[in-house]
Amino acid sequence: MCQLLGMCCNQPTDIVFSFSGFATRSSEHADGFGIAFFEGKGLRHFVDHQAAERSPVADLVKRYPIRSKQVIAHIRKATQGRVSLENCHPFVRELWGRYWVFAHNGNLVDFQPRLHAAFRPVGDTDSERAFCWLMQELAKAHASMPRIEELNATLAELVPQVARHGTFNFMLSQGEALWAHCSTHLHYLVRQHPFGEARLQDQDLAVNFADVAQDGDRVAVIATQPLTLNEAWVPMQPGQLLAFRDGLPV
Amino acid sequence: MCQLLGMCCNQPTDIVFSFSGFATRSSEHADGFGIAFFEGKGLRHFVDHQAAERSPVADLVKRYPIRSKQVIAHIRKATQGRVSLENCHPFVRELWGRYWVFAHNGNLVDFQPRLHAAFRPVGDTDSERAFCWLMQELAKAHASMPRIEELNATLAELVPQVARHGTFNFMLSQGEALWAHCSTHLHYLVRQHPFGEARLQDQDLAVNFADVAQDGDRVAVIATQPLTLNEAWVPMQPGQLLAFRDGLPV
Repeated sequence: MCQLLGMCCNQPTDIVFSFSGFATRSSEHADGFGIAFFEGKGLRHFVDHQAAERSPVADLVKRYPIRSKQVIAHIRKATQGRVSLENCHPFVRELWGRYWVFAHNGNLVDFQPRLHAAFRPVGDTDSERAFCWLMQELAKAHASMPRIEELNATLAELVPQVARHGTFNFMLSQGEALWAHCSTHLHYLVRQHPFGEARLQDQDLAVNFADVAQDGDRVAVIATQPLTLNEAWVPMQPGQLLAFRDGLPV
Repeated sequence: MCQLLGMCCNQPTDIVFSFSGFATRSSEHADGFGIAFFEGKGLRHFVDHQAAERSPVADLVKRYPIRSKQVIAHIRKATQGRVSLENCHPFVRELWGRYWVFAHNGNLVDFQPRLHAAFRPVGDTDSERAFCWLMQELAKAHASMPRIEELNATLAELVPQVARHGTFNFMLSQGEALWAHCSTHLHYLVRQHPFGEARLQDQDLAVNFADVAQDGDRVAVIATQPLTLNEAWVPMQPGQLLAFRDGLPV
């Protein structure tokens, strides 16, 4: 299975610490990786068919502190679809003049929706098919970008229609909010004042956020499995869909 | 004005040599850069709001020999639109299950087409507006991906409708072919057997392609201004639209 990592902040923040721990897990998830950073409405999107541990692109991400309020990352262990660049998550589409980013962990069975509109998969994964269907149905439900609360309501109707086909842990963002849906495994935490030390599970690395964060900063980190040893990760429940905004679940 | 660089090959080839010369020009084009590489149907897309000379992302591109048959790169000197990530070329959209990449050099005046379909600009440049309009009109003209010859015919009808609004040098690719349109300045050359030495205009660097290329390799390089001193660059004519495929204009 793949693994997901998301970050949603109230101030542009770099994800170097969390991504470093996350990328360590790629020895078991060697079929590609990807990460997307929103900067305002703009997007940086890095994908590689190499494992995040070996990829020069992942190395750049670990060394270049890109500051972003919304990040989605994915390390891939192929279930459906070949190991190739077009099958690397996250996927990107434009809708209502904003980029949308999607990454999926899980496996969908017999999910072959009619895709009759402007969103077609480029690769051959169940994940990209599900993303295109969500985009198509969102485009049908709203004429232009609705408020987050309205998107929550529409997604709450759409997501179960996909989730009944299998495991559908995913993250979705259009740069303002980040939606996380849990079928099986997804955890989150909120870092805010008073900040303390966090120690990575996967490598011998710790950061004292009290040294680097400002008092008003708030960062939500969402991941398939907890990334740190000494923080209170909240497990999401099967079927739960959460929208994060400005570093908090709303 | 911005500058454009494109490459179209019959075998996956790295663009490190040409991009190194091209990036040197960014001292005068300091408002961002971008490059997109097709790998099969997949796409790597790098953008940065920093000049290509200073950008860590451009540094990765110079050091990591990504092998691709279709590449489009752009260094930006802003005319319309703020200096921000969402205004960096090349722009990407999906149509008919393929990614399309577009970069523009020039300036369009009073170009405010009706965009009523699934392609909306994210940023605020004339260039992205023109790209969205081209995508919209291509989507109306064909139900699925047509042959290159048909796309040539449709683009030959569409492009002059934009070009009469100003300067419209551009490159466009969906991974199989690369279209180059010249309003004012665009040059190309084809490297093929027998290969010789090429010496960059902009820095003291030469490559003898006889040492690195195979006999059957063929590479077309398209650029705003010739990149090398000792090769026979062909100037394109104002109003000329060329499709390149497998390293040759067709």
